Amino acid sequence: MTDTAPTPDLLAALPADLRERAAALDAADPLAHHRDRFARSEGLVAYLDGNSLGRPLAATRERLASFVDGPWAGRLIRSWDEGWMDAPTELGDTLGRVALGAAPGQTVVADSTTVLLYKAARAALEARPGRRVIVADTENFPTDRFVLEGIAAERGLELRWITPDPEAGVTPEEVAAAVGPDTALVLLSHIAYKSAYVADLPGITRLVHDAGALVLWDLCHSAGAVPLSLDADGVDLAVGCTYKYLNGGPGSPAFAYVATGLQDRVRQPVQGWMGSADPFAMGPAYEPASGIRQMISGTPPIVGMLPMRDMLDLLDEAGMPEVRAKSTALTGFVIDVADAYLPGVRVVSPRDPERRGSHVMLDHPDFRRVVAQAWERGVVPDFRPPQGLRVGLSPLSTSFTEVAVGLWVIRELLG
Amino acid sequence: MTDTAPTPDLLAALPADLRERAAALDAADPLAHHRDRFARSEGLVAYLDGNSLGRPLAATRERLASFVDGPWAGRLIRSWDEGWMDAPTELGDTLGRVALGAAPGQTVVADSTTVLLYKAARAALEARPGRRVIVADTENFPTDRFVLEGIAAERGLELRWITPDPEAGVTPEEVAAAVGPDTALVLLSHIAYKSAYVADLPGITRLVHDAGALVLWDLCHSAGAVPLSLDADGVDLAVGCTYKYLNGGPGSPAFAYVATGLQDRVRQPVQGWMGSADPFAMGPAYEPASGIRQMISGTPPIVGMLPMRDMLDLLDEAGMPEVRAKSTALTGFVIDVADAYLPGVRVVSPRDPERRGSHVMLDHPDFRRVVAQAWERGVVPDFRPPQGLRVGLSPLSTSFTEVAVGLWVIRELLG
Repeated sequence: MTDTAPTPDLLAALPADLRERAAALDAADPLAHHRDRFARSEGLVAYLDGNSLGRPLAATRERLASFVDGPWAGRLIRSWDEGWMDAPTELGDTLGRVALGAAPGQTVVADSTTVLLYKAARAALEARPGRRVIVADTENFPTDRFVLEGIAAERGLELRWITPDPEAGVTPEEVAAAVGPDTALVLLSHIAYKSAYVADLPGITRLVHDAGALVLWDLCHSAGAVPLSLDADGVDLAVGCTYKYLNGGPGSPAFAYVATGLQDRVRQPVQGWMGSADPFAMGPAYEPASGIRQMISGTPPIVGMLPMRDMLDLLDEAGMPEVRAKSTALTGFVIDVADAYLPGVRVVSPRDPERRGSHVMLDHPDFRRVVAQAWERGVVPDFRPPQGLRVGLSPLSTSFTEVAVGLWVIRELLG
Repeated sequence: MTDTAPTPDLLAALPADLRERAAALDAADPLAHHRDRFARSEGLVAYLDGNSLGRPLAATRERLASFVDGPWAGRLIRSWDEGWMDAPTELGDTLGRVALGAAPGQTVVADSTTVLLYKAARAALEARPGRRVIVADTENFPTDRFVLEGIAAERGLELRWITPDPEAGVTPEEVAAAVGPDTALVLLSHIAYKSAYVADLPGITRLVHDAGALVLWDLCHSAGAVPLSLDADGVDLAVGCTYKYLNGGPGSPAFAYVATGLQDRVRQPVQGWMGSADPFAMGPAYEPASGIRQMISGTPPIVGMLPMRDMLDLLDEAGMPEVRAKSTALTGFVIDVADAYLPGVRVVSPRDPERRGSHVMLDHPDFRRVVAQAWERGVVPDFRPPQGLRVGLSPLSTSFTEVAVGLWVIRELLG
C-alpha cells in the first residue's frame, strides 16, 4: 500500500451511508488498483488538488535516480545523439497518441506553458497577416490573458474580450458574436480553471474557421483527464501543462501542438539553435527546422521531462475513456456529497457531466479559513479567491473514500 | 573511488615523463579530492567535455530521489508556500554569491538560455527607446545571433555586426568602433565558445556605457569556471546556462542577471502569472513584479533546478579563485601536451592564461574521425566543424592524469 489511507477514526466519523457508498464505488472501480502505483504521501489524508499538481508515481523515484547514473553520468554528451535530441518530439508524439488525439509530428514538449502560449500565439499571428484582432475571454487563466495583453501591445493589435458567465464558460454563441473578418486568432481554455466548464471545442473551432481565423486552445485542465481529439476536431494550435493530470512534477515543461497543415505557415519569434534546421551546423543565419521542431528555442529540459513518462505509461495502460468515466463519477460524487452534507455550500461547476471537467468548484464565505485549516489536517484542496474551494479529482490517484473523508473534514471545519 | 580511473594499460602507454608530470600535478592539486564527489561514470576513460555538459555529483542521485518522496509527494502543493515560489530568486541569489559576484535580488533561475536571452534583450531595448541599433559579433554562439536576428526583424532595428578574429574574440577596439549614439544594446559572450578567448568584460562594459548603451553578457562558458564580478564591473544584464560548469544536468534552467539600478526601467515581453506582482490575485491586467522576479514568465522549473544545487555547494566549498587556478593549470597542461605530443595539431586558444577560459580548441583536418573514434574508447571531447577538437576542462571533476590519458588516445587515433 503506497497510498493515502484514512485512519480508522476518520472513517468512523463518516455517516454509515456515505462510508458505505464510497466503499461500494471504490470496490466497483476498475481503475482502483492503479492508486498503488503512486508514491506514498506521509500524513496525507485526502489529496483534492491533483488539478494543480499531480502526485508522483512511485516509479519516478527510481527513474530520476537511475537517470543520474545512466544516461547522464554514464553516457554524458553522447546521450544527445542517443535520445535527448529527439526527446521533445518523441515525448510529444507519445503525449499526442495517449492524451491528445494527435498523430505524430505535431506535438512538442518544451519551455513553460506561458512561454509556449507566447510563441504559439505569435506564430499563429504570422499565419494571418493583416488581421488585427485577437479574441479572448475575461475568465481565462491570468497567464493566458497576460500573454495576449503583451502581444497585443507590442504588435499594435486589438484585444477583443468576451465576457462569459464566470460560473460557466465561453459559449459558441459568444464566440460567433466576437469573431469576424478582422480576427486573426482566438485563444480559449478548453476547461475553465475556476468553474471546470468544458467548452464546445469542436463547435467553436468550426466557428473560428468560418471566420477565417485560427484557434489556440489552452489544454492545461484537460490533458490527461479528458479525452481529446485535436486532429479530428481540426484544431490549429494548442498548449498545455504537464504538472497537473500528467504528473510531471512542479514546473515540468509544457507542450505545444501545431497541426501539420499549418506548420509551414507559422513562425515563432524566439529563434534559438535547437529550433533551427541544423543545430550543429552553427551557421550564420537562422533557418527554422521543418515541422513541429521549429517551436523549440533552447536546449530541451531533459531532466524535467522524466517524471511525466511514468504517468503517460499509466494513462496508456488505463485508457483515456476509462479515465474520463472515473473522473465523471468522482466529480458527480463530490456534487452529491456537497448537496447532502455541506450546508450553505453552493456547487458552482456544471451539473451536466458532459460539460464538467475533472474538478468541482464549491463556494462558501468561510472557505479561505477552511482551506488553511484543512491543509493542516492533511486534507488538501485549493482556494480560489474570493471564496472558492476547488476540489481536483485526478482520476488515477484518487479514491471515493478519500473524497468522502476529505469533504467530511471540510464539513467539520465549516462548523 | 567514484571517478574515472584509467586502466593500468592506458597509464603504461604514456611516456614516463608525461605520466610522472601528470601524477605530480595531481598530487599537488589542492582540489583533487573533490573528484570523489562526482557520480561514477562506467566505462569512461577521460571526460573532456565538461564545458558542454557537466558530470553529475553523486549527491544528485539522492537529491532527486528524496525530492520525489519529500517536497513533492509529501507536501504536494503546500510546497509552493514552503519554498518553491521563492526558488528562482533564492537559487539565483546563491548563484550570484558563489559564481557571479552579484548581490542578492539581481539573479533569477528560469527558462532556457535562449528564452532568457530573448527576454533580456527585449527588456534592455525597452530601457533605450529611440535607439535603433543592436551590436553583436559574427563569432558568437548561434543562439545569441539567432535571437537577435529575430528581435531586430520584429522590432525594425538594425543589427550591426562586429567581425572579430575567429581564433580570438571581440576586442575593446572593435566595440568602440561599433557603438555610437544610435546603439541601444550590445550582446557579447564573455568567453568565446570556440576559441575560449576571454573578452575584456570590464573594459567593454565601460565603452558601451560611454556610448549610452546597455550591455548583455552571455556567461554560458564562464559561470562556475571563471570568477565574475558583475556588480563591481557595472554589468547591466547577463544570461547564462547551468548545465556546463554548474552541472545542472541536460537542459537545466538558465539564469538571468539584471542590475538593481536597471530593474525599474526594463520590461520583458513574455508576461505570465509568475512574473506578475501578485500571482494568486488572478487580477484582470498584468502588473509586473518589482525587482528581478519580473523576468519570470511561467511556473518555475523546480525539478530541473535541483541538480545544480549540489554543484553550487561544491563550488562554494572549493572557492572560485581556486577553481580558476586549477582551470588555468589544466588548460595550460593541455597546451603543453599538444605542443609536445600531438604532431600536426594546432592550438587555437589563447596561450595567455589571462585571456583563456576553461577549454582549449585544437585544430587538425582529421578531427571529425578522431572524435568519433575517441568516443567509442571512452575518451569524450567534442567536435566543432570544420575541424576543431574542443577539450573542456571542468576543474573540479577533471584530473591531470585523465587529461594525459585522453590526449594520448587522441595521439594514437591521429596515427
